[in-house]
Amino acid sequence: MYNINMNLVKSIVAEIVEKKTIENVAFVGCGASKSELYPAKYFLANASKKLRVAHYTANEFNFDTPDWLGESTVVITASLGGTTPETVKANGVATAAGATVIALTHAKGSALDQTADYAIIHGFEANYAAKLEKMGYAMAIALELVNQIEGYDKYDHMIEAFDKIFEVCENAAKCAGKAARQFAQEYKDAPMVYIMSSGASAEVAYSSSICLMMEMQWINSGNFHAGEFFHGPFEIVEKDVPFILLMNDGKTRPIDSRALEFLNRFDALTTVVDAKDYALANACSSDVITYFNPLMHTAVFRVFAEEISYIREHPLSKRRYMWKIEY
Amino acid sequence: MYNINMNLVKSIVAEIVEKKTIENVAFVGCGASKSELYPAKYFLANASKKLRVAHYTANEFNFDTPDWLGESTVVITASLGGTTPETVKANGVATAAGATVIALTHAKGSALDQTADYAIIHGFEANYAAKLEKMGYAMAIALELVNQIEGYDKYDHMIEAFDKIFEVCENAAKCAGKAARQFAQEYKDAPMVYIMSSGASAEVAYSSSICLMMEMQWINSGNFHAGEFFHGPFEIVEKDVPFILLMNDGKTRPIDSRALEFLNRFDALTTVVDAKDYALANACSSDVITYFNPLMHTAVFRVFAEEISYIREHPLSKRRYMWKIEY
Repeated sequence: MYNINMNLVKSIVAEIVEKKTIENVAFVGCGASKSELYPAKYFLANASKKLRVAHYTANEFNFDTPDWLGESTVVITASLGGTTPETVKANGVATAAGATVIALTHAKGSALDQTADYAIIHGFEANYAAKLEKMGYAMAIALELVNQIEGYDKYDHMIEAFDKIFEVCENAAKCAGKAARQFAQEYKDAPMVYIMSSGASAEVAYSSSICLMMEMQWINSGNFHAGEFFHGPFEIVEKDVPFILLMNDGKTRPIDSRALEFLNRFDALTTVVDAKDYALANACSSDVITYFNPLMHTAVFRVFAEEISYIREHPLSKRRYMWKIEY
Repeated sequence: MYNINMNLVKSIVAEIVEKKTIENVAFVGCGASKSELYPAKYFLANASKKLRVAHYTANEFNFDTPDWLGESTVVITASLGGTTPETVKANGVATAAGATVIALTHAKGSALDQTADYAIIHGFEANYAAKLEKMGYAMAIALELVNQIEGYDKYDHMIEAFDKIFEVCENAAKCAGKAARQFAQEYKDAPMVYIMSSGASAEVAYSSSICLMMEMQWINSGNFHAGEFFHGPFEIVEKDVPFILLMNDGKTRPIDSRALEFLNRFDALTTVVDAKDYALANACSSDVITYFNPLMHTAVFRVFAEEISYIREHPLSKRRYMWKIEY
């Protein structure tokens, strides 16, 4: 069961690489959409031996446009509602420079859709798996780019993982209720919460912090890479200081494990969302599992955010400023 | 007056590019040293039309080593004391793959110095300018790489800026006392503080948050790109929530200005360190000024951190865990 249309991705990339010699790939978005492009950026920057790969918050791309932007660049933009002004502007900046734009959006007919060379319309509401489609499409585009341009020896294993990952993540989210309710009970009055992860999931920690906690719950929050924990943030650890650790199955797991050991040793209030507990390995072979952690962490932590929103009686859709005022 | 030895950098890079065809440049460090490599990464990733550029916390580089690491890669590592285990290990990972390593450290004879192909020993204690040498050397290496490999049309302006920037930053730090004491008075009891910036200074905000505030003052802190502020974090803004904004002179200034306007509108407790107020333009021409903001922000915000450490009677050198226990 694919949640994403691999043939569509394959044909878009084939059409692009037939027409142009692609040397650069830039991922451009804002907030949650920026973070949902990170796993694709992480994969492509690691796996490609030829492509130059970059990742921007949209206005940095717009105001300090890289010197190399041009015909040989593919720009992948994302915006759920398709109206984020900075990201729509990025479509224009990219197109004006001769780059090819692939937009990911849930909103057919939106400005983002209409100003891109190619647009892929992804799901969102249906279930937890649907909420992963934006991230999955970005990864699939990255995979097709590296495979079609230079060949990629783990291509078949990546494709097999795409075939299973959405169902495995949906099932994981459905099993997360009990752990999520325990988290909600323990963290509901926390004055602030730190979130960390590593590898491809580094920006799941980021968006869980700045979007789910700060934006949607008005809870103070900080986030950092679990490998950076020992180079600053760990000095804040005392008994009962609240942490969330998104643990990876794959190459960066030792980084996460070292952070967990320290948190436990000094009795920090720690919630772990471990991709191993949710059987990520059922979806992916060990040589590519590193790249699929963000889908699992995003699906499962969504349930955690929902549970804390219920217990705090603060809906995830509640806002002070967003959608309400001009800024 | 140079604080850094440009001829040394020029000759190291010349020797490397004479022997090998360089295609990849990776910057690798931990914590403050990682963040001090970011301006060089930012410059090179934007300005080079050929080189592939990456930036890692050291253990991510060690545990999920990129597929392309090899003979055609220059790895630039940094560690003040030259003993950071992850970064020393990165020297080994890079060398074993056939890459060329340039290490930046204050400690001659340290493990980092001894395991690199080239080492540059930089200052630290002498004054505020000396604390910028690590960052400056990384930028100078990036400049020589792009210029010697493919040519760079703003090379002369960059060199002119290096000639003046250290003295201009030293003078700026010496003028910052009054503003820093006001900051210390206003923020000394803050339960947490958010720090943001944009462009080349994005990771000055990061290290100011995780190192100066969390590590050295045990003050809760979060940080993010000023362009991301409107895509999550701004929902936390209320009267008197404490923010620090490191404002850039150059291309990303409109991003910072937009964030400042919002903070002022909703009466957040806001401290601004504006590169314009400290006359960054005296050191750099407008076509390269964007890249030199991190040196100014680092010099001036150091004074702010010192002043808050005095008023809180919490020395910047005080630690619970670092240097005290094994972890």
